[in-house]
Amino acid sequence: MRNLKLTLAYDGTEFSGWQIQPNVPTIQGTLKTALEKLLNHPVNVTGSGRTDAGVHAHGQVANLETMRSIDTDAVLRGVNALLPREIRVWQVEEVGSEFHSRRSARSKTYEYHVWRSYIVSPFHCRYVYMFPYEIDTVAMDEASRMFMGTHDFTSYCATATPVEDRVRTIFESEWRRSTEEWTFAIRGSGFLQYMVRTIVGTLLYVGTGKLKPQDILSIFEQRDRRLAGPCVPACGLHLVRVDY
Amino acid sequence: MRNLKLTLAYDGTEFSGWQIQPNVPTIQGTLKTALEKLLNHPVNVTGSGRTDAGVHAHGQVANLETMRSIDTDAVLRGVNALLPREIRVWQVEEVGSEFHSRRSARSKTYEYHVWRSYIVSPFHCRYVYMFPYEIDTVAMDEASRMFMGTHDFTSYCATATPVEDRVRTIFESEWRRSTEEWTFAIRGSGFLQYMVRTIVGTLLYVGTGKLKPQDILSIFEQRDRRLAGPCVPACGLHLVRVDY
Repeated sequence: MRNLKLTLAYDGTEFSGWQIQPNVPTIQGTLKTALEKLLNHPVNVTGSGRTDAGVHAHGQVANLETMRSIDTDAVLRGVNALLPREIRVWQVEEVGSEFHSRRSARSKTYEYHVWRSYIVSPFHCRYVYMFPYEIDTVAMDEASRMFMGTHDFTSYCATATPVEDRVRTIFESEWRRSTEEWTFAIRGSGFLQYMVRTIVGTLLYVGTGKLKPQDILSIFEQRDRRLAGPCVPACGLHLVRVDY
Repeated sequence: MRNLKLTLAYDGTEFSGWQIQPNVPTIQGTLKTALEKLLNHPVNVTGSGRTDAGVHAHGQVANLETMRSIDTDAVLRGVNALLPREIRVWQVEEVGSEFHSRRSARSKTYEYHVWRSYIVSPFHCRYVYMFPYEIDTVAMDEASRMFMGTHDFTSYCATATPVEDRVRTIFESEWRRSTEEWTFAIRGSGFLQYMVRTIVGTLLYVGTGKLKPQDILSIFEQRDRRLAGPCVPACGLHLVRVDY
C-alpha cells in the first residue's frame, strides 16, 4: 500500500464543511469522489482536521492509501481535472506508512480576517468578517498574548465539543493590521470546534470594552463557555498551514 | 432634479452583464431595483458603459436623477443595505445636471488578469484566466505598445458591434508581471464590445508565436476581425476606473 499526502486549498463558501455527510456538498466527499474516479477503487480521505461549513483553507493536508502505481504528478493533474475549481490540490507526495495527516500534525496555523470599514469589497466579502467599530488595539493585543501557552480551552470552544481532553498549546497569537484588513494569526498544537472563532469573538469584546484583558485568564479558569465572547462567522476563518 | 453620481464595484461572476434584460440578473437591473426601493420613484440608472456577462468592476460609474432631498450619505448606506454583497457602492456624490456617466467620460482603464501556472488558487479562480504556456515577453510587450494612439478598432472588437465609429485612442497599454499573475492594463478614450478581450487574445497569440508584433498594425489596416486573436474569457476582465 502507498500512502499519499495531499496539500490543498478550498473556498469553503459553498460547502457544508470538511466532513463527509449525506446529501450536502463537503470537501472530504468531493475529494473522495474525484479520487475514486481517478484511482478506480474505494478511497478513505483523512484530513488533518475538520473545518466547519464556510471555513476556507490554503494549506489543508489530507492523506489516503492506494495500491495503484500511478505517479504523484498524474494524481495531481488528474484530481484537479476532476475537482470543481473551488478546491485545488497544490501538491501530492508519497510518504511513509506511518504518516497520518491528523495524528502526525505538530501544529496548525489559522488566520481570521476582519474588515475594518463599513463597505466590504465584492472581491473580499466571501473571505472576511466586517467589523468596522472602534477598537482599543492595546487592550486587544494584550488579551491576544494571554492565549499563548498551554490551557484548558473549555471556555473557548463549542459547548457540544465531543472531545474530552480540551488542553491545547498556543505558540503564536497576534494581530497584523493594514488599513482596511486586520488579520489574527494563531498557531497551536491543535484546535477544538469553534475555538479560533470564539477566541476572535472574545478579542473583539476586549477591543470594544465589553471584557478586559485580565478577564481572559479568569475565563480559562472557570471553564464556562458562557463567559467568553461570541463565535464570529465562519467566512473570516482560514486554515493556513499544517506543520509536521 | 438632483443628479447623483455613483462609483461602484461588482463581482460579475453571477450576473448577465451590466445592461438590464428581462428574467436574468444584471448589474443595472439590480441597482435600479435597490434605488427605486430606496427613493420610492422610478429610476433610470445610466452607466459609463456596458460590461459583458462575467466581467468585474472596481470603479464603474453610474448616474441617476432624483427629486428626493435624501442626503448622499443616506443614499450610500441605504443602497448598500439593499444590494447583494456582490455589488457595492463606494461613493455617492451630487453632481451638476450636465454630468452624464457615459458622455462625460474622458477615459476608462481596464485590467486583464492572466494566471501563469497550471493550478489556480480557489481564491483567484473567479477573477483570472489561466494561461500557463510559455510566452515571449519581449514580442508581447512590443505588440502591446502598437495599440497606443488612435486607430480604427474594427479588427479588434465583436463583429456584431452596432457602433459605426470604431476609432478609439489608447493612452496606456502595458503588462505588469508578478510570478503567478500577469496584468494587462489598458487606458483609452473608450472601448468597443469585446475590444479588450480581443486585444489580450491577440497579445497571447503574439506571445506564443502565432502572430508577430508587426502584424498588429497590418491587422488594424485590414479591418477584418478574423485576422486578430481570439476573445479571451470574461472572468479575467476588470473595469478599474473611469476618469472625467
